[in-house]
Amino acid sequence: MKSSTPHPVPSEAAKHLKALGLSLPSVPAPRGAFKPFSRAGHLIYLSGQICEWEGEVRFKGPVGEVHDLETGQRAAQMCALNLLAVLQFALDGDLDRVISCHRMGGFVYATPGYPDVPKVINGASELMFEVFGERGRHARTAVGVATLPAAATVEVEAIFEVR
Amino acid sequence: MKSSTPHPVPSEAAKHLKALGLSLPSVPAPRGAFKPFSRAGHLIYLSGQICEWEGEVRFKGPVGEVHDLETGQRAAQMCALNLLAVLQFALDGDLDRVISCHRMGGFVYATPGYPDVPKVINGASELMFEVFGERGRHARTAVGVATLPAAATVEVEAIFEVR
Amino acid sequence: MKSSTPHPVPSEAAKHLKALGLSLPSVPAPRGAFKPFSRAGHLIYLSGQICEWEGEVRFKGPVGEVHDLETGQRAAQMCALNLLAVLQFALDGDLDRVISCHRMGGFVYATPGYPDVPKVINGASELMFEVFGERGRHARTAVGVATLPAAATVEVEAIFEVR
Repeated sequence: MKSSTPHPVPSEAAKHLKALGLSLPSVPAPRGAFKPFSRAGHLIYLSGQICEWEGEVRFKGPVGEVHDLETGQRAAQMCALNLLAVLQFALDGDLDRVISCHRMGGFVYATPGYPDVPKVINGASELMFEVFGERGRHARTAVGVATLPAAATVEVEAIFEVR
Repeated sequence: MKSSTPHPVPSEAAKHLKALGLSLPSVPAPRGAFKPFSRAGHLIYLSGQICEWEGEVRFKGPVGEVHDLETGQRAAQMCALNLLAVLQFALDGDLDRVISCHRMGGFVYATPGYPDVPKVINGASELMFEVFGERGRHARTAVGVATLPAAATVEVEAIFEVR
Repeated sequence: MKSSTPHPVPSEAAKHLKALGLSLPSVPAPRGAFKPFSRAGHLIYLSGQICEWEGEVRFKGPVGEVHDLETGQRAAQMCALNLLAVLQFALDGDLDRVISCHRMGGFVYATPGYPDVPKVINGASELMFEVFGERGRHARTAVGVATLPAAATVEVEAIFEVR
């Protein structure tokens, strides 16, 4: 699956990404019997994305023990870039069709009792705000878990409203 | 609560289940102060179902330590059969009113760092595809957790669109 | 952010809270780069709320080791009161605009294998029923996790339908 249909005019969102020095990866192949997104009317449910890049898991192991906060935040941002790659594909290459990011669910593979899971997931949340402005501000739940797919450090899912 | 109102004509979904040699249990009694599903317009939110059968939890304890992958997959399939029992009840016995399975959330009681949670939850996801075909393909998030209700091995929740 | 716009007439929901001897806190400040709720049509996604009160986390550490079931239930009820504070704010002070609580997600910071996460989360679910009656009955998923924001004992999120 290619990451997106090239869109004739670069979206504002794509310009914001470029200004941040970031680019989107290819749409990640699902690591199981599911699809990357499902559309219900104007809502798009995005499958959980881990901190992989072009098929390689870049961060494995728990925050608090193996990884520090800054590394966890980079992992969370990588999850968000994968989410945006899927979303861009779902929107035929035009991220400006995003009306709102309504909800994000963040899961941090963490040492029991690690207190800073919200700061870790900020690495994903802040990117949404930087790319979409106010439309990127969302409700969120962040928790710390015992393990994630491929023992990845972070996984993030999202619900967007689009046109 | 009986598992479903008998429907005059067996649904295509019911035929697929039968061809797989599977049958649905009764609608599980909620293990707390909640209801098995809630309908919001065309969306049905299904409560998380554990790997129980007619009230008895069949698989307890973590995958990766107590249980192997294959056992985890059987536990996940059992969760999915409970979800279908609830869905059939919600649809007055006619699973063919399913338009789409949009999202599944899979929780595996797992040893810290266990890498194969997606393969475990495939036991639930593949059943949805076998029963509903393309309409059963969904977005998904799978994570590994420290414990589940009754120390069950797997819990799965879902969102369906129906008519 | 003040907890709510004063509504000229106390809502039925507010009367039920008062009869229970309960009051709502101020709307909790988000502990990260997200907002307390997001509205999609008639649905409101509420961010996960932890067992804090006016900015102070009242219960920290795992149920099953540090805390017993009753303490976990009090923590869950506190999460629900924070959810109601946000919801009241979102509804301009009038909780009677609630049509239905469709879904609740409950996360318990728990010792591995702790079996009673549903009973813990009942502390939140029962409050919704007491405040909204049948409209407060919801679908639910409850799981036990390795850690939560600020090492809080319980976190609860919800989806409501409103007018």
